[in-house]
Amino acid sequence: MIAEIISVGTELLMGQIVNTDAQYIAQKLSELGVYVYHQCTVGDNHDRLKETIRESLSRSDIVILTGGLGPTADDITKEVSAEIMGKTLENHEPSLAALKARFSTLHQEITPNNYKQAMFPTDAIIMDNPNGTAPGCIMEADGKAIALLPGPPWEMCPMFDKHLFPYLEARSGHKLYSRVVRIFGKGESSVEQALKDLMQGENPTIAPYAKRGEVTLRVTAFCQNEAEGEALVEPMLGQIEERIGAGLIYSTQDEELHEVCAKLLLKTHKTLALAESCTGGMLASKIVDIPGCSTFFFEGCVTYSNEAKISRLGVRPETLAAHGAVSAETAREMAEGIRRSSGADFGLATTGIAGPDGGTAQKPVGLVYMALASASGTQVRELQLSGAREHIRVLSCLHAFSLLKDSLVSQ
Amino acid sequence: MIAEIISVGTELLMGQIVNTDAQYIAQKLSELGVYVYHQCTVGDNHDRLKETIRESLSRSDIVILTGGLGPTADDITKEVSAEIMGKTLENHEPSLAALKARFSTLHQEITPNNYKQAMFPTDAIIMDNPNGTAPGCIMEADGKAIALLPGPPWEMCPMFDKHLFPYLEARSGHKLYSRVVRIFGKGESSVEQALKDLMQGENPTIAPYAKRGEVTLRVTAFCQNEAEGEALVEPMLGQIEERIGAGLIYSTQDEELHEVCAKLLLKTHKTLALAESCTGGMLASKIVDIPGCSTFFFEGCVTYSNEAKISRLGVRPETLAAHGAVSAETAREMAEGIRRSSGADFGLATTGIAGPDGGTAQKPVGLVYMALASASGTQVRELQLSGAREHIRVLSCLHAFSLLKDSLVSQ
Repeated sequence: MIAEIISVGTELLMGQIVNTDAQYIAQKLSELGVYVYHQCTVGDNHDRLKETIRESLSRSDIVILTGGLGPTADDITKEVSAEIMGKTLENHEPSLAALKARFSTLHQEITPNNYKQAMFPTDAIIMDNPNGTAPGCIMEADGKAIALLPGPPWEMCPMFDKHLFPYLEARSGHKLYSRVVRIFGKGESSVEQALKDLMQGENPTIAPYAKRGEVTLRVTAFCQNEAEGEALVEPMLGQIEERIGAGLIYSTQDEELHEVCAKLLLKTHKTLALAESCTGGMLASKIVDIPGCSTFFFEGCVTYSNEAKISRLGVRPETLAAHGAVSAETAREMAEGIRRSSGADFGLATTGIAGPDGGTAQKPVGLVYMALASASGTQVRELQLSGAREHIRVLSCLHAFSLLKDSLVSQ
Repeated sequence: MIAEIISVGTELLMGQIVNTDAQYIAQKLSELGVYVYHQCTVGDNHDRLKETIRESLSRSDIVILTGGLGPTADDITKEVSAEIMGKTLENHEPSLAALKARFSTLHQEITPNNYKQAMFPTDAIIMDNPNGTAPGCIMEADGKAIALLPGPPWEMCPMFDKHLFPYLEARSGHKLYSRVVRIFGKGESSVEQALKDLMQGENPTIAPYAKRGEVTLRVTAFCQNEAEGEALVEPMLGQIEERIGAGLIYSTQDEELHEVCAKLLLKTHKTLALAESCTGGMLASKIVDIPGCSTFFFEGCVTYSNEAKISRLGVRPETLAAHGAVSAETAREMAEGIRRSSGADFGLATTGIAGPDGGTAQKPVGLVYMALASASGTQVRELQLSGAREHIRVLSCLHAFSLLKDSLVSQ
């Protein structure tokens, strides 16, 4: 089965929002073994939209569109799609009732422009939208289909999962089985050099790509079922591990570093507390993204000022005076201080110069220290990173979680 | 001038990464008044890539491609582009020297597959890449151009700004002047209803779009210069403010809520400290993203456990026992506690149930309290949000910053 994704919206063409919808859908299609060779973005312009949908439909079995289903006059995706499929739009009573109920719950008056969101071809499959006003639909004709989804991701994703995923699953002929290997501490070209011959294989295939600060490999097999896929992919994972080194591979399950840390903390019944300066809440926010983190996460202190480093973490004023806030000594006292005051097993700390200002010849922008205090002592790492403020902060988080992961693995 | 953006990469088609490059470029083109009617994504496949570039080039003056410039065998964007333009690739000595220097600095051996990154048509404009191994280039032929940029955003963005932006600026005929109005506290269809007649105007145009939890309007004028643009757009901003209500418009400069808070804190010489439970470092991380935040930001405490709420913030155990961690009373004591212990002018606190577990009939998932303590007393707001864990956390941050903003504005 071949699909294309068309994202509709002037706000995408003007770069006002980033297209996370296309990524979400593409990822799900990939899981389903549906091929995607093209994605397009086009504005709310009748002629260009019509031409784009027609071209996509000519190349594929199903075209999946996001956006342009709303109440405003420039929302025309459904109208244009019906035109292409030779269908007329009529009032869909259940959708209209849901729309009215939604407005009534919100104690808002329903405005007339909302009604067109409840108009559909009579033979369309309606996809209800509990998270917004515009339902989606699937129109079928001549063995092909057009699926229409709303643009806002918090409406689109649940609708895709509930309606379109099972629709596609029932129609897709074969399966892809894939595993994602994540590597921290080795660059992309060096990884590729090590795996060059393996990457020329056809089943499974190995596709490398660079994530910020990391390298990710997707190992994918075409198969009839999961067992066959696993049998094809598992031996390849073994070979990759042998060549790259097991220590640099932190996941073969597409997890992120902080998720691996969380799993290891749970497994070893250890607890964590954080003391952040340059990462400023980013480490904590990653951890708190994990449901159930209260089991292993005690607290975090974003000690941005020297005063906070002293009062919250017990960093000694003499240390700050002698070595500065960005130093191995301060990082060490931060990690030990948060461990002591929180009672957690691990105290993880960062301090650095994220820029763009604040750098000197001795301590340039990008100089970052991280420290990990535990029952077996305190480790400190010094890094010289480069790039924009946010980039330095993100890389610092990766290195901090990597330090924690290494320590947890060696427990 | 008409441009198209083509993003090259199987990782995009498979949804492994989100296409932030296309957004970045689209936004810059919009600033430059360059029209973009189509964006495409295509894989590293010779024939499909060639066809896509050809089609885009036929519809536009310049095609801007990202990705596929790297050292690996499936990086073919430059080769295919040269083929279309009838050019041959030759060794570019300065690029090769830079490549060798880069590897030597990193104390790494240069692998042979890297050399092709220094091959270019002799008449191409080379765009150097201080952040990666693959330089970009601009190829020109028959009055049209193809610009090639690397895929990783931290390489692409600086290269675009340094080289391609001035190249396009010199060639673009007219200008767009636009201002972005940001609204918090009113839904999209209600905003549109209030501005319906204004949105039918042609110059300036008003384009609405929904950002998570907010509504954003872009007011855009075609003009010869900035003064003319301003004269067209400013009166429209006045009308929008009149209809929506000035209190709900928090920026007409495309700033985010936390940036507006930072500006107001600086202007009023006030300082801030944070106490986060459900937002867990997200508020702090947003604040620390702002360069120079040390002027107004003292510290944040991510007090995820009850123990941390007691020890760090002085929340009374009786309060937690009587009302629970997620309650107006606890939020109040958290805000007052962080204000008192940090010495900041404002103490801002959040506590809530982000889910997916932990909800009860009395306190369902999505119940969030935020409190703001200042010299004039403490305000507490209760919210009932819905959605996934991350969604609830993001919305909580918006509401918390909105509470702070309202208080700063009324000072």
